[in-house]
Amino acid sequence: MQIIDDGNREALKRMLEGDPVLIDVVPARSVMPALRERVLLHSGPPIEWPRMCGPMRGAVAGAIVFEGWAPDLDTAVKMAASGAIAFHPNHHFDAVGPMTGITTQSMPVMVVENRRFGNRAYCTLNEGLGKVMRFGGNDAEVLGRLAWLRDVLGPDLGSAVRAAGGFELKSIVARGLSMGDEMHQRNVACTGLVMRQLAPWLARTSRDSGRLAEALAFIGGNDQFFLNMAMAMGKAIMDPVRGIEGSSVVTAMCRNGTDFGIRVSGTGDTWFVAPVEMPQGLYFAGFSAADANPDMGDSAIVETIGIGGFAMAASPAVAGFVGAGSASSAAIYTRTMGEITVGENPEWTIPALDFQGVPTGIDVRLVVDTGLAPVINTGIAHKQAGVGQVGAGVVRAPMACFTQAVRALARRLNVE
Amino acid sequence: MQIIDDGNREALKRMLEGDPVLIDVVPARSVMPALRERVLLHSGPPIEWPRMCGPMRGAVAGAIVFEGWAPDLDTAVKMAASGAIAFHPNHHFDAVGPMTGITTQSMPVMVVENRRFGNRAYCTLNEGLGKVMRFGGNDAEVLGRLAWLRDVLGPDLGSAVRAAGGFELKSIVARGLSMGDEMHQRNVACTGLVMRQLAPWLARTSRDSGRLAEALAFIGGNDQFFLNMAMAMGKAIMDPVRGIEGSSVVTAMCRNGTDFGIRVSGTGDTWFVAPVEMPQGLYFAGFSAADANPDMGDSAIVETIGIGGFAMAASPAVAGFVGAGSASSAAIYTRTMGEITVGENPEWTIPALDFQGVPTGIDVRLVVDTGLAPVINTGIAHKQAGVGQVGAGVVRAPMACFTQAVRALARRLNVE
Repeated sequence: MQIIDDGNREALKRMLEGDPVLIDVVPARSVMPALRERVLLHSGPPIEWPRMCGPMRGAVAGAIVFEGWAPDLDTAVKMAASGAIAFHPNHHFDAVGPMTGITTQSMPVMVVENRRFGNRAYCTLNEGLGKVMRFGGNDAEVLGRLAWLRDVLGPDLGSAVRAAGGFELKSIVARGLSMGDEMHQRNVACTGLVMRQLAPWLARTSRDSGRLAEALAFIGGNDQFFLNMAMAMGKAIMDPVRGIEGSSVVTAMCRNGTDFGIRVSGTGDTWFVAPVEMPQGLYFAGFSAADANPDMGDSAIVETIGIGGFAMAASPAVAGFVGAGSASSAAIYTRTMGEITVGENPEWTIPALDFQGVPTGIDVRLVVDTGLAPVINTGIAHKQAGVGQVGAGVVRAPMACFTQAVRALARRLNVE
Repeated sequence: MQIIDDGNREALKRMLEGDPVLIDVVPARSVMPALRERVLLHSGPPIEWPRMCGPMRGAVAGAIVFEGWAPDLDTAVKMAASGAIAFHPNHHFDAVGPMTGITTQSMPVMVVENRRFGNRAYCTLNEGLGKVMRFGGNDAEVLGRLAWLRDVLGPDLGSAVRAAGGFELKSIVARGLSMGDEMHQRNVACTGLVMRQLAPWLARTSRDSGRLAEALAFIGGNDQFFLNMAMAMGKAIMDPVRGIEGSSVVTAMCRNGTDFGIRVSGTGDTWFVAPVEMPQGLYFAGFSAADANPDMGDSAIVETIGIGGFAMAASPAVAGFVGAGSASSAAIYTRTMGEITVGENPEWTIPALDFQGVPTGIDVRLVVDTGLAPVINTGIAHKQAGVGQVGAGVVRAPMACFTQAVRALARRLNVE
């Protein structure tokens, strides 16, 4: 249909023109004024306490204590269950968050501006691996680290990023793709590239070498530090693609551990929701599929822009980590995703595919026609609150979201 | 022959057991007491002034001025031509140097200790790209940067490396291979990995944040910073492999811009020398093959340990940079080098080849039998003194070195 083809052409154009730049790190409330007392953002489509999964509840309780709205976790749980907390998706406030994706007022967020379109997107700082709030952790160690991010790293990163005049993210991703990163479950290269640009600015703006060393050691010691930047970048790229008449391109995919939701350009802000799938993956020593929570997080925004599982061919090492088969078979994922996308990104290319661009712009029509659901590389959280990450794997977006979206778009275009 | 097979088994064992650790950065004279006034080390096998190529002469003249042995380049050239300077290969002093490879007494060198065998190897710090002494540069900018390396970066790196207790290099290379580096013409990933480990220690040991920022910016801005570490590592790994009775494994390959030289384990310290080849490559804008100097540098030590051109399959991006054909054909180089090597390195694997180890231990017999000369990824210097780098390419080691070596080994084993 002409109107759909035109809409998708415009959608792809806006995606490729996006120019995401990390411009600041600030407390969340300073850029999201709606984040007042007892307001909490979470990953995925809308959800209320009774339907939240274990790790999401754990993270919520931890965040309530962290913000000082309750003195301990038990009180926090009662408070959340009583309806005293307002829950909203990150996506409703120009934000994204990995796994549980909790964002509250005092947490530092990275500010990524899409310089082509002027919009901004936000994401919290990556907490590192193991027992962390994004995987449902909420003990003193987890909250202590969040306090350090709030009081030390966040402000110091903000000073450094402002002094540097911002960091262009598109070129970092381009290099990362030639260095084995797919920017979802593997961010080793991009973290190093950011470190190389950022470290001199941290040094220039720091007044305390002990504090500086702590910041550098934290970033340097965390292979996934770039993930949250990639997510804010993804949100900044996709937001201007929303609301294009007729377009069947997916503008967001996200999950809250209970539901999977997608938004499509031509159907505006409607969420198409279905029960979330269980990842197929590999488990850390001592854990198994019996411990796993279903899929979770706003991080699938990176697949929406053509990286993550869509760029598996760039990252043979990640194929092993997420249990996606042999390294040489990684290319199959990328080729398959080429069948459900509207184009390729000439600036983000994959050397092992002779510099073919990553498959870009998921078309809900192609997903339904081919029966090929988008593939997402993901971390796996323990299903109980407070435990943390237990593995990593691959998950498919539920087909039901796409069939709903196709029907809604058809209704809107009067072609039902 | 049993004695050769046994020798090569022992050679491979020693290579794989090598445990290279960067333990310090110190002035060259403190670890190489022979480096007195008017003593100068260069890359490749022995050579005297009359046979030196243009960029080597340029670098020699620059180093003489840098050390204060002559007031200007003209006087320096006269001094060198008069026989007043003693020239020696780096390899004769446990050292290696890229391209012209000049090492003089006050230059800082990295100290890499092979913890398994206790030997140490040295290499100067990488100067960055463009007009630099290793490519024959010798003007005020070049000498000013060398002074900064001597007075600022060298001492600061030394403090940081000592405080950290050293950095294990083998694991960095292992990760680099999964991130598109081959550690000769591409060191983007390893430089980032080193930066992530090093930056906190630089911060902890620094007393001046401006100086710290300068150091971090220099390392962070130089994609090839790791190359010189990889070279010192290569020398540290290969030195214990020298002098194994019967072994036909190459322990060093190097070139001085005029001659190519190799050493073989079973023939001790003898150099087998032949005229050096011209690289086949790609030239920077404004330059062509007519500007190119023949191949140069001790950096081929990295191919001797199985990386560089031998690990081309790990680095499809480098294949384009050095003009080695399409990205997907990069694997052919690695497979071919598998035909002239005695084994694979299980700790250094290539994801794109389903984690096959890099081809390790060049066997001069196999080179001569197959007619396949070792492939080396290399930078290309301008043939005139003072200009600098003009491109990058691939070069083959001259077959004549290997036929000489096979004959010498045969004579020694009385099987001629």
